[in-house]
Amino acid sequence: MNTSRLEAFSDGVIAIIITIMVLELKVPRGETFGALLPLIPVFLSYVLSFIYVGIYWNNHHHMLHACEQVTGPILWANLYFLFWLSLFPVTTAWVGENHAVAAPSALYGAVLLMAAIAYWILQQVIIGSQGEGSVLRRAVGSDWKGKISPALYVAGIAAAFWFPWLAQALYLLVAVLWFIPDRRIENTLVQHKA
Amino acid sequence: MNTSRLEAFSDGVIAIIITIMVLELKVPRGETFGALLPLIPVFLSYVLSFIYVGIYWNNHHHMLHACEQVTGPILWANLYFLFWLSLFPVTTAWVGENHAVAAPSALYGAVLLMAAIAYWILQQVIIGSQGEGSVLRRAVGSDWKGKISPALYVAGIAAAFWFPWLAQALYLLVAVLWFIPDRRIENTLVQHKA
Amino acid sequence: MNTSRLEAFSDGVIAIIITIMVLELKVPRGETFGALLPLIPVFLSYVLSFIYVGIYWNNHHHMLHACEQVTGPILWANLYFLFWLSLFPVTTAWVGENHAVAAPSALYGAVLLMAAIAYWILQQVIIGSQGEGSVLRRAVGSDWKGKISPALYVAGIAAAFWFPWLAQALYLLVAVLWFIPDRRIENTLVQHKA
Amino acid sequence: MNTSRLEAFSDGVIAIIITIMVLELKVPRGETFGALLPLIPVFLSYVLSFIYVGIYWNNHHHMLHACEQVTGPILWANLYFLFWLSLFPVTTAWVGENHAVAAPSALYGAVLLMAAIAYWILQQVIIGSQGEGSVLRRAVGSDWKGKISPALYVAGIAAAFWFPWLAQALYLLVAVLWFIPDRRIENTLVQHKA
Repeated sequence: MNTSRLEAFSDGVIAIIITIMVLELKVPRGETFGALLPLIPVFLSYVLSFIYVGIYWNNHHHMLHACEQVTGPILWANLYFLFWLSLFPVTTAWVGENHAVAAPSALYGAVLLMAAIAYWILQQVIIGSQGEGSVLRRAVGSDWKGKISPALYVAGIAAAFWFPWLAQALYLLVAVLWFIPDRRIENTLVQHKA
Repeated sequence: MNTSRLEAFSDGVIAIIITIMVLELKVPRGETFGALLPLIPVFLSYVLSFIYVGIYWNNHHHMLHACEQVTGPILWANLYFLFWLSLFPVTTAWVGENHAVAAPSALYGAVLLMAAIAYWILQQVIIGSQGEGSVLRRAVGSDWKGKISPALYVAGIAAAFWFPWLAQALYLLVAVLWFIPDRRIENTLVQHKA
Repeated sequence: MNTSRLEAFSDGVIAIIITIMVLELKVPRGETFGALLPLIPVFLSYVLSFIYVGIYWNNHHHMLHACEQVTGPILWANLYFLFWLSLFPVTTAWVGENHAVAAPSALYGAVLLMAAIAYWILQQVIIGSQGEGSVLRRAVGSDWKGKISPALYVAGIAAAFWFPWLAQALYLLVAVLWFIPDRRIENTLVQHKA
Repeated sequence: MNTSRLEAFSDGVIAIIITIMVLELKVPRGETFGALLPLIPVFLSYVLSFIYVGIYWNNHHHMLHACEQVTGPILWANLYFLFWLSLFPVTTAWVGENHAVAAPSALYGAVLLMAAIAYWILQQVIIGSQGEGSVLRRAVGSDWKGKISPALYVAGIAAAFWFPWLAQALYLLVAVLWFIPDRRIENTLVQHKA
């Protein structure tokens, strides 16, 4: 069983998640530019979540390129990852409507953390299925981003109770870390195929 | 006519069903963790339905792997199966808003039952199209899970009128039964191709 | 340019249309079976529209199998067809909330008529692109279903003003006509490839 | 890494955008044809946006045909383009509910402008990735439509403050310009492959 249908299904779910987040951007009430003001925090949290989902889509895309065969545990680890991604729209909307408030900021970070853990589990399940000499293990290497991100999310969740803006700055920092291109998987694959 | 477009369309519909279920998780009213409390039953029924849709997606994925050619009746049996899956979001939301109540619990089970029957019909239509020596028939074997599930759903529907929580426990039991990996189709396919 | 991306995009749009129609099945207000009663007409119009979209998906699937090359006009004729399909959810919901009423029944039929015309245009554009000896022209043959359907829709629209239920019976009749399997395209393709 | 998964994901997002725009066409309140009157401007703005998304889909389709290899920057430029497309539903709904009003007309144009810029960036990133002798650069040629469109959008945004209908006429004019078939990319690809 190859990865094509797994990719197609994941793409479908991720495409829908990224698009329904925009449904929280309600049509402004009023016909002036002033009517847009209350939408600004909702818009900003949409932008941040869009970037997060985009990063996950890119990384997922690369990771599945390093996966030759799909097993039952990979299917379920992938669904578990999609489950946590599917909660992004609701936590994004909550934090968008209540910016700089403890509970929404903490919950937003908790869902980010769970998605990161689920992504890590999926990565480990694929590595496990590849046995020794796993291409993905070499591609991932020391995985410092994968290790530092959960720590930053936990710091963000803790910070949310005192300084919600700091929490959001930390979440943004993780996004920036991942956004900076990382050619590990690409390079390892190129070497592997050469 | 091969199965690729049928898979793509089914994946699209299933991806959308799994994602619109999450739309029932409304943005909490309020900015405290307390505002999350009323969402807990909705969240739990989302989790159960997510697992159900995930199980169906996995099984559908395997079943279509054992199907070489798509006929008109297969297309319609597949649409009939997707029809019942498409009712999961509304019954999930109803049971989520009214947990431990007779009618929503019974209706939830009835839709699960109809989806199971539709899945069984699709399986029979594919087996029928393959004639004697059907790969799928051998793969499915005695199909004890397929036989016991409808009985458990019927028991759940009956239980819903007196003990709604028992109904939900029975539905969960069926999910657990299916979740436990089942290598029949994979093994038969491997043998068939060897 | 081959048909694969056109199929994928059309499948995506049709999958979403078929799924968002179910969003009109609102969560029942109340926790008894009685709360389901007001949903019955909405449910029935959902079933009818689901069948219609299913028929179109099947036929579209077959038609594109008889299309070897995608041209600019085919892309636009396909989008025009998807445009009319995209109006099914709103007319379905209107007729579901106002069953046996003139205007919704007539509008429902008008959108069905426009979709049928758009489908016919797409078919003609593909035939035109294939030049003489078009596989699709031979496959379609006399196309009596394609000719009688618009007449029945027009009759239904007219009937809607006096006997809305008759209108809906006529729309159902067209669905039944198309639902009965039609092996023209499949057979012609088989002959063509042999 | 080839373009197939990028196409599939983009198709998914675009299919969803085109379909959720129709969700703004709310079910008419009332059961007469008169109930449809308030929907006319919403319908017209839906038609215009549908055409826009259709044009972008067609062009995107052609552009990716001229792209042999997907790089990290292409993935992000594509997501950036999809981000702006994802704002079409909300600006379409706002302009549909407030036709001939300054702010919604200007914002609608601004999002069109940003999408055009994002599309241009994506085009430049692909050209850059192809190095000298880029197929896409030759295909795009002088790109007069790509150059005149932003100017017309800016004119439309400015006009929105005094003559909102003129703004919408200008946006329509750009759509018409792009709708007129343009065989540059197709021709260049045909020559390139010959």
